[in-house]
Amino acid sequence: MVVMTPTASEAEIEAVVRRLEAAGVHAKVMPGELTTAIGAIGDPEGVRALALEGMAGVDQVIPISRPYKLASSELSHHEPTLVRVDGRVVGGNETFCLIAGPCTVESREQTLAVARAVKEAGASMLRGGAFKPRTSPFSFQGLGQPALEILREAREATGLPVVSELTDAAHAEAMAEVVDVIQVGARNMQNYGLLEVVGKLGKPVLLKRGLSSTVDELLMAADYILKEGNGDVILCERGIRTFETATRFTLDLGAVPYLKLHTHLPVIVDPSHASGDRRLVEPLSRAAAAVGADGIIVEVAVDPEAALCDGPQQLHAGDFQRFADSVAGHASLVGRVLA
Amino acid sequence: MVVMTPTASEAEIEAVVRRLEAAGVHAKVMPGELTTAIGAIGDPEGVRALALEGMAGVDQVIPISRPYKLASSELSHHEPTLVRVDGRVVGGNETFCLIAGPCTVESREQTLAVARAVKEAGASMLRGGAFKPRTSPFSFQGLGQPALEILREAREATGLPVVSELTDAAHAEAMAEVVDVIQVGARNMQNYGLLEVVGKLGKPVLLKRGLSSTVDELLMAADYILKEGNGDVILCERGIRTFETATRFTLDLGAVPYLKLHTHLPVIVDPSHASGDRRLVEPLSRAAAAVGADGIIVEVAVDPEAALCDGPQQLHAGDFQRFADSVAGHASLVGRVLA
Amino acid sequence: MVVMTPTASEAEIEAVVRRLEAAGVHAKVMPGELTTAIGAIGDPEGVRALALEGMAGVDQVIPISRPYKLASSELSHHEPTLVRVDGRVVGGNETFCLIAGPCTVESREQTLAVARAVKEAGASMLRGGAFKPRTSPFSFQGLGQPALEILREAREATGLPVVSELTDAAHAEAMAEVVDVIQVGARNMQNYGLLEVVGKLGKPVLLKRGLSSTVDELLMAADYILKEGNGDVILCERGIRTFETATRFTLDLGAVPYLKLHTHLPVIVDPSHASGDRRLVEPLSRAAAAVGADGIIVEVAVDPEAALCDGPQQLHAGDFQRFADSVAGHASLVGRVLA
Amino acid sequence: MVVMTPTASEAEIEAVVRRLEAAGVHAKVMPGELTTAIGAIGDPEGVRALALEGMAGVDQVIPISRPYKLASSELSHHEPTLVRVDGRVVGGNETFCLIAGPCTVESREQTLAVARAVKEAGASMLRGGAFKPRTSPFSFQGLGQPALEILREAREATGLPVVSELTDAAHAEAMAEVVDVIQVGARNMQNYGLLEVVGKLGKPVLLKRGLSSTVDELLMAADYILKEGNGDVILCERGIRTFETATRFTLDLGAVPYLKLHTHLPVIVDPSHASGDRRLVEPLSRAAAAVGADGIIVEVAVDPEAALCDGPQQLHAGDFQRFADSVAGHASLVGRVLA
Repeated sequence: MVVMTPTASEAEIEAVVRRLEAAGVHAKVMPGELTTAIGAIGDPEGVRALALEGMAGVDQVIPISRPYKLASSELSHHEPTLVRVDGRVVGGNETFCLIAGPCTVESREQTLAVARAVKEAGASMLRGGAFKPRTSPFSFQGLGQPALEILREAREATGLPVVSELTDAAHAEAMAEVVDVIQVGARNMQNYGLLEVVGKLGKPVLLKRGLSSTVDELLMAADYILKEGNGDVILCERGIRTFETATRFTLDLGAVPYLKLHTHLPVIVDPSHASGDRRLVEPLSRAAAAVGADGIIVEVAVDPEAALCDGPQQLHAGDFQRFADSVAGHASLVGRVLA
Repeated sequence: MVVMTPTASEAEIEAVVRRLEAAGVHAKVMPGELTTAIGAIGDPEGVRALALEGMAGVDQVIPISRPYKLASSELSHHEPTLVRVDGRVVGGNETFCLIAGPCTVESREQTLAVARAVKEAGASMLRGGAFKPRTSPFSFQGLGQPALEILREAREATGLPVVSELTDAAHAEAMAEVVDVIQVGARNMQNYGLLEVVGKLGKPVLLKRGLSSTVDELLMAADYILKEGNGDVILCERGIRTFETATRFTLDLGAVPYLKLHTHLPVIVDPSHASGDRRLVEPLSRAAAAVGADGIIVEVAVDPEAALCDGPQQLHAGDFQRFADSVAGHASLVGRVLA
Repeated sequence: MVVMTPTASEAEIEAVVRRLEAAGVHAKVMPGELTTAIGAIGDPEGVRALALEGMAGVDQVIPISRPYKLASSELSHHEPTLVRVDGRVVGGNETFCLIAGPCTVESREQTLAVARAVKEAGASMLRGGAFKPRTSPFSFQGLGQPALEILREAREATGLPVVSELTDAAHAEAMAEVVDVIQVGARNMQNYGLLEVVGKLGKPVLLKRGLSSTVDELLMAADYILKEGNGDVILCERGIRTFETATRFTLDLGAVPYLKLHTHLPVIVDPSHASGDRRLVEPLSRAAAAVGADGIIVEVAVDPEAALCDGPQQLHAGDFQRFADSVAGHASLVGRVLA
Repeated sequence: MVVMTPTASEAEIEAVVRRLEAAGVHAKVMPGELTTAIGAIGDPEGVRALALEGMAGVDQVIPISRPYKLASSELSHHEPTLVRVDGRVVGGNETFCLIAGPCTVESREQTLAVARAVKEAGASMLRGGAFKPRTSPFSFQGLGQPALEILREAREATGLPVVSELTDAAHAEAMAEVVDVIQVGARNMQNYGLLEVVGKLGKPVLLKRGLSSTVDELLMAADYILKEGNGDVILCERGIRTFETATRFTLDLGAVPYLKLHTHLPVIVDPSHASGDRRLVEPLSRAAAAVGADGIIVEVAVDPEAALCDGPQQLHAGDFQRFADSVAGHASLVGRVLA
């Protein structure tokens, strides 16, 4: 939709129409009370490429169709995508996927202890960071390859599939050997090279929303993975950056039902990173279940106060059974069982 | 806490100490590895008034104590405040207050029909706008005084207490005669004259968070009302303005448990204005119950598609019983019954 | 422009058309490749009132014409408005208005000293707060009426017109007797009662942008004043609230040329409140002149480090001549002389 | 600085002190009127790793020293860094670096024509995209390697050093052979793998601020490059994401003088991407010069209305001489000559 300025001349209107038609786009002129609008009917990419905003007399070009394609439940799959991970189903409105584990793999003992605790409480998968992206180069960056070995052992000990973040394409092969679900972190949501790499790995992907990305941009990022032929993408709302600093980020739970209306992909929630405060993680986890998310991903520690990374937001393993039951109760009210 | 620059001289440090001590504030110098910090121990208002940031060698002045007082559960009341409205209790973690009604009072028939429908479904109070603040002066501004008469009749017909927004101190008396809970809208959260007026009216106040106000600012605004001797203040999270435009505002549900940690006042949630889309109101209402809010305030219409104001976000009266039951289920899981 | 969902039925499209036509709005159906759009040609207010977003099959309603009217240079005045204040011209691209003075009137001596210093350096007007809106009720709120007397004396002593903020309609008459330009502060930009009051006072108004208001909302707020018949409105960009906390607010200088394209009203900039740091005020003042603003409003103090309010952002009176010359140099490069 | 809650017990305070001292950090207890604060004097990284926020009785942990190191003018270099690119000096307050060229290299003719036009008008360097990161995978992604050949030819023809963006570590070697300054785009500011790669390339780096990154995070990202031994980092403000959508991003010009206070690295401004509208680029470029930036980077096209990418924001080559003179005038007023 091309909106002309109130003072646009006939000649300027015609020039826009000509450029549209020269590009094979059908143009429909709509004279309004104040301004004339021109509907451009055809391939949205093609219209964008015409850069009509630069033409004389043009006030605004307003895209009418949504900018993502493969992730759209309106344009592509009308049925919800079910991502299957070693028997667990994510997506489809009947299951709730509880992913839990340490922020970072710090040692074999710590990781196995947490893995056993969350398994016992009914968790669906184990999370744990091997490579950590840190804002400052002087912070702890994760154990790397040894962490992957520990995660492999934890999976064998508990049977839980493992979720871990890929921060660099160079680690993709090593990670794909061990990890069941490849996580793309918020800071890499628009790292398009990495998205294409994970699109080709043939593993389910957990794609976190960038901390200042719109949900439309999240869906366009998913398109990067989907177009490589990998349909197993799980979206994750993890809090956005706003003016409010009382909580670390602002968890955008309204994005969950919005996404469920517009995409066929599963949507889970990460309340740990959003809040940065253990006391908020449980209420927000219950809310995520109640709002209709397909799951949550939370951080758990045996002794969170001694953890090297993100300690204040980690749940206590000793309290995890009660936590899981409480969240499962709300999931059950909306017709879901733990995956 | 006054932090000096790394290059601050001894004389500059001493000048800060002298100014603090001259104002009766105790100063504690703490030389660090890189910078020297000076702890200022005394009345925070007094320290702020010294404007130390302007002094040579001062890098930052970081307030350590929180800026609100009367609303604080740490400094004032340690027990939750229970606001009682005609027998209904708001606050205190045992009840859930369901406030429902039309966005705007448009006619007697419409208002009575909605009031009866929400009463039957178990609502705790009736909401309805008599005076509407509108962004453009050319939009419908509410019926005014006649709307108050209709609300009075609806209260008599249903027994539901009435919540309505005060937009101008000039209407305070007229409104106080009819309305049980005076609402201060988001755009007026920092209209300090109005806050003092409602502080003196002797009626419970529903104070909405400004659309770009931090929760600390919300609590300072509550202080304006509390200091007039009116202790019956109900806080309301209603969505904040962020970069995301998929939903009208971003509902900050993390603010609810944060507020419950730091204030004794009840906290409710308005999912209707936050989302601007009926299809999101129910999931967000369930989430508000699950996150531990003391209630919600939602818009309901008999025929929302014909409503003059904010139609797309209004729930259907015909579906309200099912909606109320669903929300009450989640409230019940966290130990609450409908107020 | 009404955009239907890709799956909207013919009947749903027709229902929208019928509702538009029943309201006297002309509807133009435009079937697209993916979705059908319906152009609604007529009064935008009327279309909004139809609440089409609530109808079955409707995906989005996108307003095409801009929401402000009287402030628009496209719909109302095509020529720039010149606001004349005691001989000084604000607006019109040939003058630059330098408004300076203390944040708050604290004493007769302080105010007169600053007034004389800024007059000598070439300032166009004197600013000074009599009533101060403060976030916390426990902060200093201004001297009130005695401050107005001091401002009157400063005007007589220097010949400078006086700008001061009206925070409460109750002070309007008293203020109009003394003050030459009535300021509406950022926190009151959407206090519509107050806007109508200043619209009727018959004095030029300096309207500050709300700290989280869009420029379109600023122009709609100006419409509230303009529709009362008061055409002398000066807009003021003063920084918006964003995620960045290094500066107090984020000064949106891009808003200045944007506003100059879309409104006939003068636009000035307040770099003092935006930055909260004296060391940034001068660079931002130069930038405001270079970007094409019609003026700036800055805080100046004889001894800023002792000021009761907002000390760290106030310029030193002793350095003000150099400051003014530097800013005037940049204004001169874009063809402006000090007003 | 560790702030305890008002109700923290003596034992809780002692536990914090013990944990600090066990980690070799000196602790200073400061009992206040309302709360006790504990100053932690030692390595900030070490203190952060202790995760004290998780301990009983702890309310907040407030970092006092700034989180970046190598980029700091307080902790590292006290003198401004001068980045020398083929004889041009960036940084140091005496030069102004004018980088101009097409958004994307689309053809040999287009690129050479623009290169010659900007060279003639006094530009310091040529910009041009070979690989473009695009939000949607279906948008034009740049010519890739052939674009590098065209840039090499343009450099030979004009003598202008070339700036181009690296989007993927896989292209680093190819790019380093041709390009004089490697740009890291906003979406990759926290792509730490890429930062380390460019840190090792031995070429000057132009590091753009992430669209929702704070200036502190920008400086921490610079630390990633600096710690690899590459000291030639040029920072670039290019607009941040805020609630305002009238302009594409909000150009944060206040960040420029803030950065000049806290870092020794040069700071330039990109007004083209920030505004997305040619009519705003010139005013904002003048403002960037006036605010004290070390340069700007702008997009220029021979026929911007036909450009495949970002057309509406590109300046006209035919008008570029006048543009450059106007910007240079403001730079000259603050004591700078074109680099």
